[in-house]
Amino acid sequence: MKRIGLLGCGRIGQVHAASVAASPRAELVAVFDPFGSAVEKVGRDYGAAAYTSPDPILDDESIDAVIVASPTPTHIDLLTRAVRRGKGVLCEKPIDLDLARVDACREELGELTRRVMLGFNRRFDPSFADVRARVAAGEIGGLEQLTIISRDPAAPPAGYVETSGGLFRDMMIHDFDMARFFLGDVAEVTALGANLISPEIEQAGDIDGAVVSLRSVDGRLATITNSRRCAYGYDQRLEAFGERGALEARNQHATSVRFSGAHTTDAAPPIHHFFLDRYTPAYRAEFDAFVTSLETGENPSPGFDDGRAALVLADAAAESLRSGRTVTIA
Amino acid sequence: MKRIGLLGCGRIGQVHAASVAASPRAELVAVFDPFGSAVEKVGRDYGAAAYTSPDPILDDESIDAVIVASPTPTHIDLLTRAVRRGKGVLCEKPIDLDLARVDACREELGELTRRVMLGFNRRFDPSFADVRARVAAGEIGGLEQLTIISRDPAAPPAGYVETSGGLFRDMMIHDFDMARFFLGDVAEVTALGANLISPEIEQAGDIDGAVVSLRSVDGRLATITNSRRCAYGYDQRLEAFGERGALEARNQHATSVRFSGAHTTDAAPPIHHFFLDRYTPAYRAEFDAFVTSLETGENPSPGFDDGRAALVLADAAAESLRSGRTVTIA
Amino acid sequence: MKRIGLLGCGRIGQVHAASVAASPRAELVAVFDPFGSAVEKVGRDYGAAAYTSPDPILDDESIDAVIVASPTPTHIDLLTRAVRRGKGVLCEKPIDLDLARVDACREELGELTRRVMLGFNRRFDPSFADVRARVAAGEIGGLEQLTIISRDPAAPPAGYVETSGGLFRDMMIHDFDMARFFLGDVAEVTALGANLISPEIEQAGDIDGAVVSLRSVDGRLATITNSRRCAYGYDQRLEAFGERGALEARNQHATSVRFSGAHTTDAAPPIHHFFLDRYTPAYRAEFDAFVTSLETGENPSPGFDDGRAALVLADAAAESLRSGRTVTIA
Amino acid sequence: MKRIGLLGCGRIGQVHAASVAASPRAELVAVFDPFGSAVEKVGRDYGAAAYTSPDPILDDESIDAVIVASPTPTHIDLLTRAVRRGKGVLCEKPIDLDLARVDACREELGELTRRVMLGFNRRFDPSFADVRARVAAGEIGGLEQLTIISRDPAAPPAGYVETSGGLFRDMMIHDFDMARFFLGDVAEVTALGANLISPEIEQAGDIDGAVVSLRSVDGRLATITNSRRCAYGYDQRLEAFGERGALEARNQHATSVRFSGAHTTDAAPPIHHFFLDRYTPAYRAEFDAFVTSLETGENPSPGFDDGRAALVLADAAAESLRSGRTVTIA
Repeated sequence: MKRIGLLGCGRIGQVHAASVAASPRAELVAVFDPFGSAVEKVGRDYGAAAYTSPDPILDDESIDAVIVASPTPTHIDLLTRAVRRGKGVLCEKPIDLDLARVDACREELGELTRRVMLGFNRRFDPSFADVRARVAAGEIGGLEQLTIISRDPAAPPAGYVETSGGLFRDMMIHDFDMARFFLGDVAEVTALGANLISPEIEQAGDIDGAVVSLRSVDGRLATITNSRRCAYGYDQRLEAFGERGALEARNQHATSVRFSGAHTTDAAPPIHHFFLDRYTPAYRAEFDAFVTSLETGENPSPGFDDGRAALVLADAAAESLRSGRTVTIA
Repeated sequence: MKRIGLLGCGRIGQVHAASVAASPRAELVAVFDPFGSAVEKVGRDYGAAAYTSPDPILDDESIDAVIVASPTPTHIDLLTRAVRRGKGVLCEKPIDLDLARVDACREELGELTRRVMLGFNRRFDPSFADVRARVAAGEIGGLEQLTIISRDPAAPPAGYVETSGGLFRDMMIHDFDMARFFLGDVAEVTALGANLISPEIEQAGDIDGAVVSLRSVDGRLATITNSRRCAYGYDQRLEAFGERGALEARNQHATSVRFSGAHTTDAAPPIHHFFLDRYTPAYRAEFDAFVTSLETGENPSPGFDDGRAALVLADAAAESLRSGRTVTIA
Repeated sequence: MKRIGLLGCGRIGQVHAASVAASPRAELVAVFDPFGSAVEKVGRDYGAAAYTSPDPILDDESIDAVIVASPTPTHIDLLTRAVRRGKGVLCEKPIDLDLARVDACREELGELTRRVMLGFNRRFDPSFADVRARVAAGEIGGLEQLTIISRDPAAPPAGYVETSGGLFRDMMIHDFDMARFFLGDVAEVTALGANLISPEIEQAGDIDGAVVSLRSVDGRLATITNSRRCAYGYDQRLEAFGERGALEARNQHATSVRFSGAHTTDAAPPIHHFFLDRYTPAYRAEFDAFVTSLETGENPSPGFDDGRAALVLADAAAESLRSGRTVTIA
Repeated sequence: MKRIGLLGCGRIGQVHAASVAASPRAELVAVFDPFGSAVEKVGRDYGAAAYTSPDPILDDESIDAVIVASPTPTHIDLLTRAVRRGKGVLCEKPIDLDLARVDACREELGELTRRVMLGFNRRFDPSFADVRARVAAGEIGGLEQLTIISRDPAAPPAGYVETSGGLFRDMMIHDFDMARFFLGDVAEVTALGANLISPEIEQAGDIDGAVVSLRSVDGRLATITNSRRCAYGYDQRLEAFGERGALEARNQHATSVRFSGAHTTDAAPPIHHFFLDRYTPAYRAEFDAFVTSLETGENPSPGFDDGRAALVLADAAAESLRSGRTVTIA
């Protein structure tokens, strides 16, 4: 039974708390959040000690691992302290919005970064994971083209956008990781952006839609399409195309009901709107993989370097958008 | 090049005229209809001689075959005269509404009935025919259960219903033939009927919906569901279920477009409403099979006895509805 | 927080134990099973007192309600004792295999039967429930025809069949209840059966496939198709057809992945094979409705009389199969 | 009845001949091809005069219009001569592989280019046209993102590739036109290419797969994915995404049959492999629009300038691939 501490009790922190509670192999023993009301509620709900400082958790040698779900700027500090004390770390994405800080952390921690698992939950989505496993098993022969479509139901508030790092680092970073999950390292990135949805986002200097193309080091291609708004829900699709066929992960619906009437047939209900409705099984499977890494002592995956590599791609996309050049990854 | 005469220039006669015109192996040389305006128009459209009596066509030795598309009560007389003159016959269903007359004709003509092909066009629908061929090839192992759903877009006028022979002989007869196409001879029939749609149909002594169950002589089961009205079009589906799986022929749409919006996703357009939009390829393939039988001299299929057998099932369903008994086919 | 006792710790009992554990409004406080090893394990897993006699649970006034998940022949005794002691009862289907015993119980308990909820879990399946709610909301106008297809992945062992009451009482009883859920009371039943799958089932005097047609008292039609074997999994579908369209609950898959290759396109994975993979949400929702009835004091639904009515239809189907008659429900 | 001459009797010329024959508003009166055997066969099949020089057709004042289906390098000469003689022209894409020649022709002909219709048949595909019409009708609100996937079943012979102008001018030119059909004029183009399929294509200096992103002058985005090989057939899809939803044109199958078995469910047959199986209705509708333009005297659409604009995008994509820059369209 692994003893887990949770650092950060906001929305995503509570998602992780529920995953720990659902696991028969782990228990949530302590939670931290600077906001007393939040941490008390989560502590009470899950029967965990509640602190408004992370120190008691980081100092508690009986705690095997921590989940870093605090605001992005605190990630590096918390994960550094945790791994130095010998704890396993499951860190929400991104490691940091600033690649220079990520690289400094990497240099400082060296091998210790291998104890950090990055929270790219989509790798654990049953459908995406199934496509990946079947591609790896050779079901479509050599993978040649990857098409990722990822759209949020509604744009976040302008205040969020300002500190988010921009669409590439905040939203598309999941898709960059997904591209690397399928294609391995990327050699070239080219991006186009749009401002069609939200004047507030434009005023904040960000885009609200984008298409990015990638070429992997071994010459395979991918496109990623993002939009900050999608009328029919949380649009999350992927198609892997190869020599012998294609595997597609379609959107998912709450029921299997279809309606046929005078004006339409085979009409399905809207897809999931809330990221949790879609990705709860993914968060559960992610935590399960994390616990397994704690039990076996093997390095978790995706790791710190995967987090860094996705950030490199986000920066390259931003640079391509700015410069009008296809950016080559060093 | 087979020379074809058409007997009857109503709606279904014109469907056959178009099939002949589309065939590179046959030509329409003469047409008959008692209504002068109809026969003249069809004759002109297809460059065929037009007659208001069938005699010149039946007497013309240069005509290889006739298509009987006249009103049902005239079928037996016309097909009898045609086969006696050595012509091939493609006869629209049903042979007659009265089984006693069919049996008398069968006794009178004997082996000559083998020159008659019955117009059960659905056997030639590319989707139904594909299911049948794959069942025959063993793709689902032994066939065990057959589910047929067949619904018309809108109820026919009351006047039509009165002379139609009733839902079982007029509409479900196609489905009885389809059941025999898959299951072979039928041993038991049980029927339930409904009057939910049209008071006129009820006043005419007929039903406007029905479910019929069949058991084949080798113990396999089928259900047929009919309705005289279907809001979303001409509902024509079939599912063959067997030891190793199932083959399903779904409804068909004019385009492959799907719409997703705030209230619905993956919504297809309505299915075909008009029987010709759905079954034009079937009528073409049916005529093609008929021409092949003329060229090879082999007996066409489905034949006279298939027409009789479907009528026997229609009568059995009517008897089951009347008596509240499962009717055993002799 | 309602205090729940579980009577019977077999497979279905454990399903209910998990539902209780998942509910924030109820707790499992005591469990009974005559097999000591089973009851101890379930008691330990859920932190409940474990007994090899039901008496301590029935006598415990602090227990609000019991779930009857013991072998069928014990249902009536246990539910009778529980309701007499003022407890709510969630009783697995069927109440009993013998309608005479059910009627005797009904007479004996009178109004007390209203405290019994019957475990027709499929009414709570999110897709079936959605179809029902949308039909009730008028989305397809008046309901006219209902098509139910229900097939098990694999035939049960012959030993099970012998005590099961036969396909109609054991398997199709769920579909009879579903038909009543949509159509209300049934007036006529006609059945055909098959022995195509299992010689053991035939030797046990039962059938392994069946099609049953129903007519409701207000003249609407339904067909039910059952098979004891289905190569592609647990086939659970329903289509409600009405004046303005149709609502269909399709099968469900573990992922949304589709494969396209040289021989096939859009190919989905197999559907769920195990009833729990398909119906876990239904069992959860069923228990949720039960707790609500305990909290509000309103009579739960479906109730004792729904359990009796489904058994009446099962008996009528068996009688129809035996007699070759359409059976009229009194 | 418009009198049509056909210039070029190769594969695509024969497609057009069949379209003319199927039209009740036009007749094919003369055909030209330098290869005597080809032209004689087509002339005989369609009852048209056959010539090994285009001159008799261009000189025949009774001929209303010509279809230019000859090799690409001859397009400009033939269309120039035809429009100068007052004939309507339906010219296969591309006008020419060399933009400078296209511009010279445009300057020389001036207003006369308006009499030329370009053979972008996909605009007339019933599904793509339906999506376009519904977008235009506002069904998805403002269009924001367009996703086009277009893959050929198998790579052409190396000899063809060498004279084809390359993937962008030969294959993706259809998709560039489709992007313009939906988005209007394009402002920016960025391209990535791949050589994963055919060493012969690589040796010929061409790519065998590509992803191209576009930004329209009003800021909307599109991606185009092309592959010279697709195991499951002729992959032709398009998705238009807008403020209020999405419209998707899916692939199309020859039948509506689906198979379910132990390893797969809902499996459809392969999609069309041959471009004609997919696009015959599009070629028919295209010719129909052409005849309408002849009858009304209105300028046909798509026109010469659409052909030029697609070529500009193809050149821009090639330049982007070469330079690693996003290319801005003047």
